Amino acid sequence: MRIRDYGLTVGSLPTGPPNRISDVPGVTAGHATIVTEAHNTGVTVVLPCPDNPFVNKLPCASFVLNGFGKTAGLVQIDELGTLETPIALTNTLNVGLVHDAMVEYMARLCEKDGVEMRSVNPVVCECNDASLNDIRHRAVGQEHVFAAIDAACAEFEEGAVGCGRGMTCHGLKGGVGSASRRIELDGRVYTLGVLVQTNHGQLRDLTIDHRPIGEDIWRALNENKPDRGSCIVILATDIPLSDRQLKRVVKRCSVGLARLGSFIGHGSGEVFIGFSTANRVPHTPVRAIVDVKAFSEDYIDLCFRAAAEATEEAVLNSMVAAEDVTGYGGHTRLSLSHFMDRLSR
Amino acid sequence: MRIRDYGLTVGSLPTGPPNRISDVPGVTAGHATIVTEAHNTGVTVVLPCPDNPFVNKLPCASFVLNGFGKTAGLVQIDELGTLETPIALTNTLNVGLVHDAMVEYMARLCEKDGVEMRSVNPVVCECNDASLNDIRHRAVGQEHVFAAIDAACAEFEEGAVGCGRGMTCHGLKGGVGSASRRIELDGRVYTLGVLVQTNHGQLRDLTIDHRPIGEDIWRALNENKPDRGSCIVILATDIPLSDRQLKRVVKRCSVGLARLGSFIGHGSGEVFIGFSTANRVPHTPVRAIVDVKAFSEDYIDLCFRAAAEATEEAVLNSMVAAEDVTGYGGHTRLSLSHFMDRLSR
Amino acid sequence: MRIRDYGLTVGSLPTGPPNRISDVPGVTAGHATIVTEAHNTGVTVVLPCPDNPFVNKLPCASFVLNGFGKTAGLVQIDELGTLETPIALTNTLNVGLVHDAMVEYMARLCEKDGVEMRSVNPVVCECNDASLNDIRHRAVGQEHVFAAIDAACAEFEEGAVGCGRGMTCHGLKGGVGSASRRIELDGRVYTLGVLVQTNHGQLRDLTIDHRPIGEDIWRALNENKPDRGSCIVILATDIPLSDRQLKRVVKRCSVGLARLGSFIGHGSGEVFIGFSTANRVPHTPVRAIVDVKAFSEDYIDLCFRAAAEATEEAVLNSMVAAEDVTGYGGHTRLSLSHFMDRLSR
Amino acid sequence: MRIRDYGLTVGSLPTGPPNRISDVPGVTAGHATIVTEAHNTGVTVVLPCPDNPFVNKLPCASFVLNGFGKTAGLVQIDELGTLETPIALTNTLNVGLVHDAMVEYMARLCEKDGVEMRSVNPVVCECNDASLNDIRHRAVGQEHVFAAIDAACAEFEEGAVGCGRGMTCHGLKGGVGSASRRIELDGRVYTLGVLVQTNHGQLRDLTIDHRPIGEDIWRALNENKPDRGSCIVILATDIPLSDRQLKRVVKRCSVGLARLGSFIGHGSGEVFIGFSTANRVPHTPVRAIVDVKAFSEDYIDLCFRAAAEATEEAVLNSMVAAEDVTGYGGHTRLSLSHFMDRLSR
Repeated sequence: MRIRDYGLTVGSLPTGPPNRISDVPGVTAGHATIVTEAHNTGVTVVLPCPDNPFVNKLPCASFVLNGFGKTAGLVQIDELGTLETPIALTNTLNVGLVHDAMVEYMARLCEKDGVEMRSVNPVVCECNDASLNDIRHRAVGQEHVFAAIDAACAEFEEGAVGCGRGMTCHGLKGGVGSASRRIELDGRVYTLGVLVQTNHGQLRDLTIDHRPIGEDIWRALNENKPDRGSCIVILATDIPLSDRQLKRVVKRCSVGLARLGSFIGHGSGEVFIGFSTANRVPHTPVRAIVDVKAFSEDYIDLCFRAAAEATEEAVLNSMVAAEDVTGYGGHTRLSLSHFMDRLSR
Repeated sequence: MRIRDYGLTVGSLPTGPPNRISDVPGVTAGHATIVTEAHNTGVTVVLPCPDNPFVNKLPCASFVLNGFGKTAGLVQIDELGTLETPIALTNTLNVGLVHDAMVEYMARLCEKDGVEMRSVNPVVCECNDASLNDIRHRAVGQEHVFAAIDAACAEFEEGAVGCGRGMTCHGLKGGVGSASRRIELDGRVYTLGVLVQTNHGQLRDLTIDHRPIGEDIWRALNENKPDRGSCIVILATDIPLSDRQLKRVVKRCSVGLARLGSFIGHGSGEVFIGFSTANRVPHTPVRAIVDVKAFSEDYIDLCFRAAAEATEEAVLNSMVAAEDVTGYGGHTRLSLSHFMDRLSR
Repeated sequence: MRIRDYGLTVGSLPTGPPNRISDVPGVTAGHATIVTEAHNTGVTVVLPCPDNPFVNKLPCASFVLNGFGKTAGLVQIDELGTLETPIALTNTLNVGLVHDAMVEYMARLCEKDGVEMRSVNPVVCECNDASLNDIRHRAVGQEHVFAAIDAACAEFEEGAVGCGRGMTCHGLKGGVGSASRRIELDGRVYTLGVLVQTNHGQLRDLTIDHRPIGEDIWRALNENKPDRGSCIVILATDIPLSDRQLKRVVKRCSVGLARLGSFIGHGSGEVFIGFSTANRVPHTPVRAIVDVKAFSEDYIDLCFRAAAEATEEAVLNSMVAAEDVTGYGGHTRLSLSHFMDRLSR
Repeated sequence: MRIRDYGLTVGSLPTGPPNRISDVPGVTAGHATIVTEAHNTGVTVVLPCPDNPFVNKLPCASFVLNGFGKTAGLVQIDELGTLETPIALTNTLNVGLVHDAMVEYMARLCEKDGVEMRSVNPVVCECNDASLNDIRHRAVGQEHVFAAIDAACAEFEEGAVGCGRGMTCHGLKGGVGSASRRIELDGRVYTLGVLVQTNHGQLRDLTIDHRPIGEDIWRALNENKPDRGSCIVILATDIPLSDRQLKRVVKRCSVGLARLGSFIGHGSGEVFIGFSTANRVPHTPVRAIVDVKAFSEDYIDLCFRAAAEATEEAVLNSMVAAEDVTGYGGHTRLSLSHFMDRLSR
């Protein structure tokens, strides 16, 4: 089930038919999920292109709305404006092992492609799943990262899978969600899509479709959890945005979070990363000056609106797609899907 | 009339009794309004303290959510983390003249106080009022800046006054608004207040109290204007926040804008400036190491929530307090107050 | 006289024949100088192109190494990555009046060109000349700004002219200087040039051509002044650098300052602004997606070296070209030219 | 041997007697060095305090002069202004494994101290040693990180040890170096110290004590290597600097690099991290408002000069202390110590 299956729409722009980040041509995602007595965790990988991103890098930018987080790889993205690996999302304490696995993956990929790789910048994002997962013992290893990459496809699952397995969003079950918007420019259709890892927000603040449903559920459940998570948003587009323009666009992802009731709490690392599949940047350039496409800033409001709408919808998808999870220490997070009928009361 | 006079509350934190930025002890604001055939414009000044801010500066930070604007003074605020003048708000093309007037004001103030002032950093914010004001001919002069400073008080007006005279917000009349929240820490009550200059947003996107009233009004009025303005937020508090903490807090002002329907449009300069009235920094320090108060970050969620709520309420106050204005070129902006009954239908 | 007239070279890259910022095709600069009993001040304007920069903007970026300064216009440059006016340099307290004059100039220019200008972002940089100029009474008015623009040419003067009239650099006379470097890419010659306003550094720290000449002069003059100035660097190039690449390049201007002995003192606003004359950005774009040139990052070390070398040489030119100036309050700043023979001892 | 053993001094400020980062009370450093047929690499750890930094965090800031690097942990430092772990330095592709080892170390330390640690932000810096080390096979494991921490002391070695084993600086052997400066404030002596990992610069550009020795050596050796490294600077002080002030101070580390001839090349990640041992920030605060010390900005020039001088001297120490190393692929890097007699010719 996705949020539109409940008859709700978010915003005004049209969606791609599958309404996912993979509506952007070439973009895929995959999960490896770990469920044991001690662990509810995993890893999700976003592949920005079907080929080797190290050989032809992608314009990329990040915006850190709240930096209480451990995301690795942003220093180089900010400096060079490019992405040269897949993006991995996992739990907070697993950043190191997943980073190392990404190095190994890229080394093998470059060896296969006959490309010398002396240095590489893996991008690893994280949210904290300690309330459902024994985070102390880092369960996500190289085999899970490789499995997630192998599993990458356009029709990836949403909900309590991969990096979303142990997430808590607005006091309910969070997870992985996705959505997209279509934008017409010069008579051609482009796509902007997002994938979110949702681990943020307080229950009482949750607002859906202009209804304060969180307050309602809170009264029923009689509990409140502090906002101690994060929200990671990965944004992809085939519009030839520059790194500066991508930074402007991903800033608007926060609008989607705010509309659902988040005030971007202290203990929450809100990190947004955006890339474009246009204007690939060769690792070994042949000439100093080359031809590329540029996007006229005057049209950027369409991207801003798309980023806000897609983020809001992706968060909702992550919640309604997630099943109930009882985890480490006996904590349970209920799915929003149990409460959706309250919206129509 | 203010938004609470319509029976609406925003958020959950308590407000100061007058519910303004001036609830923060020592903070005042004043306007000078210019209404002629050609002009609907003016200047508003926020005085951060009753004494000379150059002699004892205030911890300060800014966050530029959208830098399509001409605000002057942020370079030094970002470097030194202090505010040393009042903050002036005016129209876009008047930044230079208002800047010069602020220099003159500070020079006279320092002469009066017997303080040598070789350099000073006036802070001048702006929004574009060209749709109601002949902005080309800069109407705001030194006399208006001085008059606004002279008029500064705790009970300043809201609506279509001062810098708010020519503003357009969500296609309706914008202006100046204010609100505050009270925060209890260690058994003592502190205050966080904001003053906004509202010139942003599209009519169809306007959402109030979880109702899409903008769409409703838009159908009635049958017109839409592009989001080509700005929103300036000035935030004050007597909590001893550091400049870094102030930057984190003012970032949350965007939550208030997003909840009312803005997606932070391209043609809009969203600039947020926050200062604390605690821990004043002397221009001529007596010692290298001094004692100050610090705020424990663990409590900062209260400030975040307060910033989000106060901004949302202040924007609404700016709109319902504003009267209709017909201006330069015959354009009219209607007050939101005409449409408030639609909320209860 | 320029530094090369003393037989010194700086760095290893070739210079343009006149060795100025105006070696970049289309770039010019002009001064208006004010010398009275009370005043040693003025304004210098860098015109980035012979045509209207508002109609076709230029890719631009800034880097603030030390933000203890009042430069106006950086907020929009950082957001949009473009320059849409000439850049004016003046004294600290004159930023407002010069800003207003630039608005008037641009309004008239756009009226002449039949272009609607509702908003414009003048860029005004400053250094503090209070030790030689009665800065309190802002001497630079609209007539001076207009005169400087009218006077703009490729063969502009260096030294104690325009904004450089009241400058103090390493305790000696500072001013305006310029230099350029040529860079060959894909078999074609490009140029990178800088113009500096030098008001920074302590005498004892001055190092020229690997010789600690400052210590030497300091012993002779027996005086030391604190580093309380600024250094503004304007960098131009016809290489199609993106705004992100321009930011990387202007960061290297600090290398030139450090090599001459500056440690980038506290009371000094080091602001660097760079623009490219390639890839002009139309105010009114015809299409959403357009063709532009891009620069392969792998070649950027040439630009880095050029920025460092040209800045170092331009600072030296500003000093040897400057005459002695005795100013407000009877202070005198001697020209470095008196001491150049010490280098060959 | 250190640079002062050759009779050279750098700058004018006094040094601590041992002239190391460990002159700052409580700060230590340790190495684990790996030398095999394939590997010349290792890890160096800076311990900011003798006790658990997670329990009482340290004010901290970073400045990225060139972000072509993979340093992990800066996102949270920038947001919260604190350091909560030791800082590890290693080779580029080992960031992940060292990150994971730091998590394990902190988890055990917190378990020992009876503190719950659900989240932790290890700081891992890197330079690329691929020219002397088989970087593809990440040789630095958990045992090396733990060994480096165990070995931490005030009298740590300099040169080709720990993370410095495989470094190349200005075409010669780089490594680890350190230096300090003493600063008197209000009649009390404070210390500012740095530790550097040097892997930057071109041979021909090397300048020592105002002598272009690099050109000289280059003529003798007849080879030039591109600037493809990094320089990491860790700065410590017991002056109660705020995070904003620390950021200003570490920016001046670049002055030391520039004076030795670096122009901060493209392929080089220059990352500077500074922390203060004063004003420790408790993980579990007892009150919202607490008393701390603050440093008056007017005195900060002393810190700026100290940062510039100590960095320059530490780089020289890293070079003269390093022995020749022949490594992976048969490449050799000669020690600067062979060429020091050229300075006195």
